[in-house]
Amino acid sequence: MAATASSYSITMRLHTAPDHGVLGTVATTIAAGGGIVTAIDVAESRHDRIVLDVTCSAADQDHSQELVAAVEAIDGVVVHKVSDRTFLLHIGGKIKVESKVPLRTRDDLSMAYTPGVGRVSMAIHDNPEDVRRLTIKGNSVAVVTDGSAVLGLGNIGPGAALPVMEGKAALFKRFADIDAWPICLDSQDTDEIVRAVEMIAPGFGGINLEDIAAPRCFEIERRLCESLDIPVFHDDQHGTAIVVLAALTNALRWVEKPLQEARIVVAGAGAAGTAIVTLLLAAGAHDVVVVDREGALTAGDDSLPPAQAELAGVTNPRGATGSLREVLVGADVFIGVSAPGVLQPEWIADMAERSIVFALANPDPEVDPAAAAEHAAVVASGRSDYPNQINNVLAFPGVFRGLLDARAEDVSVDMLLRAAKAIAEVVTDEELNAQYIIPSVFHADVAKHVAAAISGKAPHEH
Amino acid sequence: MAATASSYSITMRLHTAPDHGVLGTVATTIAAGGGIVTAIDVAESRHDRIVLDVTCSAADQDHSQELVAAVEAIDGVVVHKVSDRTFLLHIGGKIKVESKVPLRTRDDLSMAYTPGVGRVSMAIHDNPEDVRRLTIKGNSVAVVTDGSAVLGLGNIGPGAALPVMEGKAALFKRFADIDAWPICLDSQDTDEIVRAVEMIAPGFGGINLEDIAAPRCFEIERRLCESLDIPVFHDDQHGTAIVVLAALTNALRWVEKPLQEARIVVAGAGAAGTAIVTLLLAAGAHDVVVVDREGALTAGDDSLPPAQAELAGVTNPRGATGSLREVLVGADVFIGVSAPGVLQPEWIADMAERSIVFALANPDPEVDPAAAAEHAAVVASGRSDYPNQINNVLAFPGVFRGLLDARAEDVSVDMLLRAAKAIAEVVTDEELNAQYIIPSVFHADVAKHVAAAISGKAPHEH
Repeated sequence: MAATASSYSITMRLHTAPDHGVLGTVATTIAAGGGIVTAIDVAESRHDRIVLDVTCSAADQDHSQELVAAVEAIDGVVVHKVSDRTFLLHIGGKIKVESKVPLRTRDDLSMAYTPGVGRVSMAIHDNPEDVRRLTIKGNSVAVVTDGSAVLGLGNIGPGAALPVMEGKAALFKRFADIDAWPICLDSQDTDEIVRAVEMIAPGFGGINLEDIAAPRCFEIERRLCESLDIPVFHDDQHGTAIVVLAALTNALRWVEKPLQEARIVVAGAGAAGTAIVTLLLAAGAHDVVVVDREGALTAGDDSLPPAQAELAGVTNPRGATGSLREVLVGADVFIGVSAPGVLQPEWIADMAERSIVFALANPDPEVDPAAAAEHAAVVASGRSDYPNQINNVLAFPGVFRGLLDARAEDVSVDMLLRAAKAIAEVVTDEELNAQYIIPSVFHADVAKHVAAAISGKAPHEH
Repeated sequence: MAATASSYSITMRLHTAPDHGVLGTVATTIAAGGGIVTAIDVAESRHDRIVLDVTCSAADQDHSQELVAAVEAIDGVVVHKVSDRTFLLHIGGKIKVESKVPLRTRDDLSMAYTPGVGRVSMAIHDNPEDVRRLTIKGNSVAVVTDGSAVLGLGNIGPGAALPVMEGKAALFKRFADIDAWPICLDSQDTDEIVRAVEMIAPGFGGINLEDIAAPRCFEIERRLCESLDIPVFHDDQHGTAIVVLAALTNALRWVEKPLQEARIVVAGAGAAGTAIVTLLLAAGAHDVVVVDREGALTAGDDSLPPAQAELAGVTNPRGATGSLREVLVGADVFIGVSAPGVLQPEWIADMAERSIVFALANPDPEVDPAAAAEHAAVVASGRSDYPNQINNVLAFPGVFRGLLDARAEDVSVDMLLRAAKAIAEVVTDEELNAQYIIPSVFHADVAKHVAAAISGKAPHEH
């Protein structure tokens, strides 16, 4: 049985006779089925009936249904209603807008709206740079998607992507006090997306591109970076790359191998893989081999699409060929941003001594982290139920905090490198070990150190 | 001296010797200059110096500068700094985003973001109508402008329009608990604006078009109403029309004239004028004459632009011709949405007995309301410093609350009529008089009655 998870937590409302034995039977039934009871509340009690709300965690959706069936089978218990806590949490959406100014009196209105606001508008018209000081632009980010590559769910469209973008906006607030708003675009045409983002840009201090499929995402980002005077950051590329570089920096620190000499294999040549490789090279890595479904990318292979051909041109200096299994032999580092199960645990035994395995496919990694740990010195994944979770939340809030604080117009590679270094340095020499190469997403210092690294200002200064 | 206003309120920080006479001298100097001292705070007191923050209201910006100069001229007083309260209020913007869900623990994250959010996204993918229930779409409105006709300031562009759109969003929250976000578009091309709004629509439950110049606004609204499955409402047109019809309903109730028989002259054939005329006709008015700079619009005039020709075709049944002064003779109602000073007070004497004058040009009306009141039975304006303020805040929050509650896909003329009736009916027979034809913007009942009129649900039901 896989670990239970709060994201599959349910609450069953039970009707039963007021029998003291029932609570015990319900609890043992759920436990016997592999669930974890986290709360039992009596919602109503009468002489002839009690109503119980029983909350429990399950491993997944099927498991939660099995638990409900097991409870329904208890004699004298009726399951009246099953509430899914994750769905309950989403009703009405996860973010809201609040006014920062009082609107109680006519005087309040006359300052926040007409006629007073007219003077502020004219001040901005006269000095356009004042817009960052006198409006939300200075602290706001558009979280832009076309819904074409949402989490591991694929091309589910802009409406279905909205809960993810809201979650992202909530994280921006929680970790960096940034006002982010989701913009879910009803088009998957590159030209239309570029133009729409250009058009909405005046009201935002930054653009966070999110869950846009490759290779479209590369062109969209490049064109927007050229045309806009606010920073544009594709989190699936650069956020991931920053956290991977931070984690790899500390993993290499633990196994005492220099990045410059490490043999690195990257599985996956999509948005994340491309950005990871680019940042690793910028950080000083030399020996990087990219593997896609067909095997190692090699320069001069005419069958490659343009984006992959470009990657092949800057990687694979030894001209390695063959399958993932073949190029892994002797490698120091595996970084997977590809698909579940592509890495067999036993192949890791053929890697170099004290190897490093990052299996980052979501929600199911390239290799089971526990199995990988039997061969590798350091293992990381995207999962929260294993050590060393590679989570973009470590990067994007601090990155945008720093960009906004600096009133930056662009994101430079140097900024990305500094951000990765800042995250890595949060883990002290005393703390560093194979299970702790990357700080927790709740580590209080991460976002402010990243922000300071990006903006060049000391933490707290903003 | 014009009335002082909070929107021109300033705070002067003064350094002076700790002399008991100074406070009195400062206060009398400001009063003598026509300002009103609203607060004096001692910011710092030492043996040899006191620091005072003196807040006062002025009539306008020049007046506030005169007051500062007068205080600076007081012997022994140094004005260290002058803060403009309206600008202070705007620093950092007027709205913010907040998370509605806790993000304290890993369990919280796993429900609000990955992996839990994936199930919510898939539920919406499977049942697209669930997006209104499980996301912010059900309560969010985009406040969209191109910055081409902002307040009375003209074509100041999207950045300078942002403070106004933020104010609007704050009002949406204050009066109808709606989450509105400003979208300031960097284009004044009709096709581009239409396409951009279509593209951002998936994340919003309604579109509030704002401060877009005529005649572009008509085509943009018409095309968006056709293509989108969420309501599109151009507040400068329909919000104004609703409040004008509400006020006119009560003004006619006061002077005891039926709308069907009233002779109505509308000055101004722009966005607001067109919408007002259209709604008046839908409400049962027959005798409406529209006047622009060239005089009365008459059917068959080939020199008229298309929008005005259309208006001429449905108005002016008596074929009136000539200037505003000429067509006003014998009229029951004047409604101005044109330019300051176009109506001479003495012309009102030539109108019918118990005439009604709405002088709505902003910030300076077509005629001084006090002067108009010497001849007319009822006078209204857009100004907050006279009775009967015609303010869109009476309409748009309740309109969108009702549209969102009803999950409406369109705004119908019938809805607009019902909204106007709801506002008018807030003023009871006992309350109605020439100075109170329209409720205060702070009247607690207005938004919920408008919402109920729009949605067809009883107030409080939502």
